Amino acid sequence: MNKHFNDDSIALHTDLYQINMAEIYWREGLHNRRAVFEVNFRKLPFGNGYAVYAGLERIIHFLENFSFSETDIAYLKEEGYKEDFLNYLKELRFTGTLRSMKEGEVVFANEPLLRIEGPICEVVLLETPILNIINYQTLIATKASRIKQVVGDQTAMEFGTRRAQEMDAAIWGTRAAYIAGFDSTSNVRAGKLFGIPISGTHAHSLVQAYRDEYQAFKHYASTHKDCVFLVDTYDTLKSGVPNAIRVAKEEGDNINFIGIRLDSGDLSYLSKEARKMLDEAGFKDAKIVASNDLDEHTIINLKSQGAKIDSWGIGTKLITAYDQPALGAVYKLVSIEDKNGDMVDTIKISGNPEKVSTPGLKRVYRIINKNSQKSEGDYITLEHEEPQNEKRIKMFHPVHTFISKFVTNFEARELQYTIFDHGKLVYEIPTLQEIRAFLNENLELLWDEYKRSTMPEEYPVDLSQECWNNKMKRIEEVKENIEDMIGKMNN
Amino acid sequence: MNKHFNDDSIALHTDLYQINMAEIYWREGLHNRRAVFEVNFRKLPFGNGYAVYAGLERIIHFLENFSFSETDIAYLKEEGYKEDFLNYLKELRFTGTLRSMKEGEVVFANEPLLRIEGPICEVVLLETPILNIINYQTLIATKASRIKQVVGDQTAMEFGTRRAQEMDAAIWGTRAAYIAGFDSTSNVRAGKLFGIPISGTHAHSLVQAYRDEYQAFKHYASTHKDCVFLVDTYDTLKSGVPNAIRVAKEEGDNINFIGIRLDSGDLSYLSKEARKMLDEAGFKDAKIVASNDLDEHTIINLKSQGAKIDSWGIGTKLITAYDQPALGAVYKLVSIEDKNGDMVDTIKISGNPEKVSTPGLKRVYRIINKNSQKSEGDYITLEHEEPQNEKRIKMFHPVHTFISKFVTNFEARELQYTIFDHGKLVYEIPTLQEIRAFLNENLELLWDEYKRSTMPEEYPVDLSQECWNNKMKRIEEVKENIEDMIGKMNN
Repeated sequence: MNKHFNDDSIALHTDLYQINMAEIYWREGLHNRRAVFEVNFRKLPFGNGYAVYAGLERIIHFLENFSFSETDIAYLKEEGYKEDFLNYLKELRFTGTLRSMKEGEVVFANEPLLRIEGPICEVVLLETPILNIINYQTLIATKASRIKQVVGDQTAMEFGTRRAQEMDAAIWGTRAAYIAGFDSTSNVRAGKLFGIPISGTHAHSLVQAYRDEYQAFKHYASTHKDCVFLVDTYDTLKSGVPNAIRVAKEEGDNINFIGIRLDSGDLSYLSKEARKMLDEAGFKDAKIVASNDLDEHTIINLKSQGAKIDSWGIGTKLITAYDQPALGAVYKLVSIEDKNGDMVDTIKISGNPEKVSTPGLKRVYRIINKNSQKSEGDYITLEHEEPQNEKRIKMFHPVHTFISKFVTNFEARELQYTIFDHGKLVYEIPTLQEIRAFLNENLELLWDEYKRSTMPEEYPVDLSQECWNNKMKRIEEVKENIEDMIGKMNN
Repeated sequence: MNKHFNDDSIALHTDLYQINMAEIYWREGLHNRRAVFEVNFRKLPFGNGYAVYAGLERIIHFLENFSFSETDIAYLKEEGYKEDFLNYLKELRFTGTLRSMKEGEVVFANEPLLRIEGPICEVVLLETPILNIINYQTLIATKASRIKQVVGDQTAMEFGTRRAQEMDAAIWGTRAAYIAGFDSTSNVRAGKLFGIPISGTHAHSLVQAYRDEYQAFKHYASTHKDCVFLVDTYDTLKSGVPNAIRVAKEEGDNINFIGIRLDSGDLSYLSKEARKMLDEAGFKDAKIVASNDLDEHTIINLKSQGAKIDSWGIGTKLITAYDQPALGAVYKLVSIEDKNGDMVDTIKISGNPEKVSTPGLKRVYRIINKNSQKSEGDYITLEHEEPQNEKRIKMFHPVHTFISKFVTNFEARELQYTIFDHGKLVYEIPTLQEIRAFLNENLELLWDEYKRSTMPEEYPVDLSQECWNNKMKRIEEVKENIEDMIGKMNN
């Protein structure tokens, strides 16, 4: 057996360097220095105009239960960590303050989604799991929302478990899809855990097992009221659809003949032909479900060709975010307590302007035009600023600063909420229905040009003047420090 | 709280339609009919010349523990399933026979990787989790093996947790990478569970926390013997490398100065310059570690430019299989017991020749040339055939049948092993070290032309004459059945 230790804790689901850094801080007696990290991503995925934030509920559970198990400690001991440090780890719990956007929030590149503040040892250890959770769930919620934009009021079903990247992805991915407006999942465990409606009828193997479609459909009908028959095991139009119609006619009111499912071939042609056959047989209300490697591009194309599809089963391309399977959210130190107990802003410099972090504790506001009830953009300020009390604000692009506008008659709605306050959960976790409704409200605030699936307009995410000035000041300081250091080394 | 039921079981980690089909078989009294399903994929991922099979150990644990929990049953009841069927599910355990290739086997498209035989209700329910596990782990083991081919004898480290598709992917993905020859993981939990060596030093935030590199490296050195310093927080060549050298010189034998890590910028240029600086300072043995969105393409390019990199940290591109994030393995019914108790072969027809399944219970042999000790190809036979006792076999392409060859003086090595025999585990799970060694032996059998990362030769996977004849016969039978049925419907 390869089981080395039992999988009884996920507290070690982190990168080794986090533990090494925690050890340094602890040995140096700096472990209780307060540090503030923020999470943001630098680029919207899939060329989409917005992203959908997801993952917070899982993070809350992780933080509530954060504690090293005995096997965690035993393993670290085996790896050579010393007793004194391990004793410290044993007692460690999350005592920090977490502020975060709500799940279902519409979010953009380069704005802080989440801010975590606490003793540096704790918040360093939490980087990896927090990013692991947010990166995947936000990615899939965003992909699902893109797909939902083109599916519109029709039905979208998540079918991807067999192609998901292992079990957690199937479960949390389908939850993210449900947040983004999907109607159901095929994964029964996800239904059980989250109360998501489940859907599914039968596979090709049922037809193979009964050796013909008529028998298979008859047997399905004799045990299930609601019937969707899969019609492409042998020949969709010659055999599958006629057999479905025959069984539907024979069974009459014994069953609720919901419709048929197409899973291969040209879905546009087949759906139109099947529609005619169903209509001619008197089943005008029967639905046509389609599946087979669908994504937003195929759906928009099928619709533009007039395909007669009512309901979409979406698997691989959604659950793996096939065209961009990773979101690059990062966790950056923005402020740290110095030896005098003062908080000092920190920055990470890079040759690439987008990669220079924005120092300091910040707040994010959505600036909503009171006339149009549409959003003018997001506005990042330093902690103490109060744009909601201002009459007029100047918003300017954080890289191309000459692009700017003045906004008046606005509501400044703050986007981050306090989730944990010094280790105590102070946030009431919303239901999935509430999260879905919240996303819809947020999407309503966006002009359509940000919601197009190709070539959307770029939504403004701007820094306040103070926030920008602070960033410039820190950049100068770091540059001077480096020059000093180089000077010293060369002496 | 959105927790509907506790996550105390993964038995419901399946698609709803599997449960619906199981219900039909059970209500019809067919649930104990024996059925045989095989797993195969139709196309090698990444344009690679081979794949590396992984996932079996996780499947074994799943089958050993397969049982619906009380909450599973309570949920299904809530969904409307009847007491009698639920009582049946409550007692259900895996009683079937599983044959599978071993983890670390080199595998190809269109050959059965795994075969499961048992009461149809059981084996239907197991399709989704088995595919979910095999698809991801085989995908990542294959990607990792591709990367390992270009890394060669240098060090490859898995660093991808933060970008993995949720937690299971991080854990099982890094295990798959280790099977394929990676040297270590950054994920501490994976180290704990599987005994994989863990690696990692410090992040940019350590430098930010101490506000300068010299301080950060000094503090690292004061608490850790083995030191790899991350040198790109501010300016790699002006500040990072000189500070690393300064600390290494000052600390001398107090530390084991392993080297430096580059995480941004042009890795080719920076590594060459850093190499010169380290050499001039007398640190000729110090290693240069590189990371930053690396994959097999970047590595081969960096090496061809003479980059002075000794060790590779590989994250996103590996753990998500970025260029093809899903493997499409399928689970197809190949044989089923009929009402007389006889096993009857089944087939799934498709307009696409590669998608027509190959009916019947089969065995897979690797045909090894006794002179060269290289493989001539894989040879799929019906269950009863014994190619190991033949002097000469004819191997021909299963689609383009005119491509054929005769092989003599061979060893026919069977690739599937019995893992469970009527529900009993009869297989001794190898250690990860054994699996790694097994993969290396298997790769040794392959000519180099199958191991190229671009445009490899196509490895032959051929059907025996009997297997092919059987397939043709079944296709004809199905076609006749359909014609009969259409005839009847039109009367």
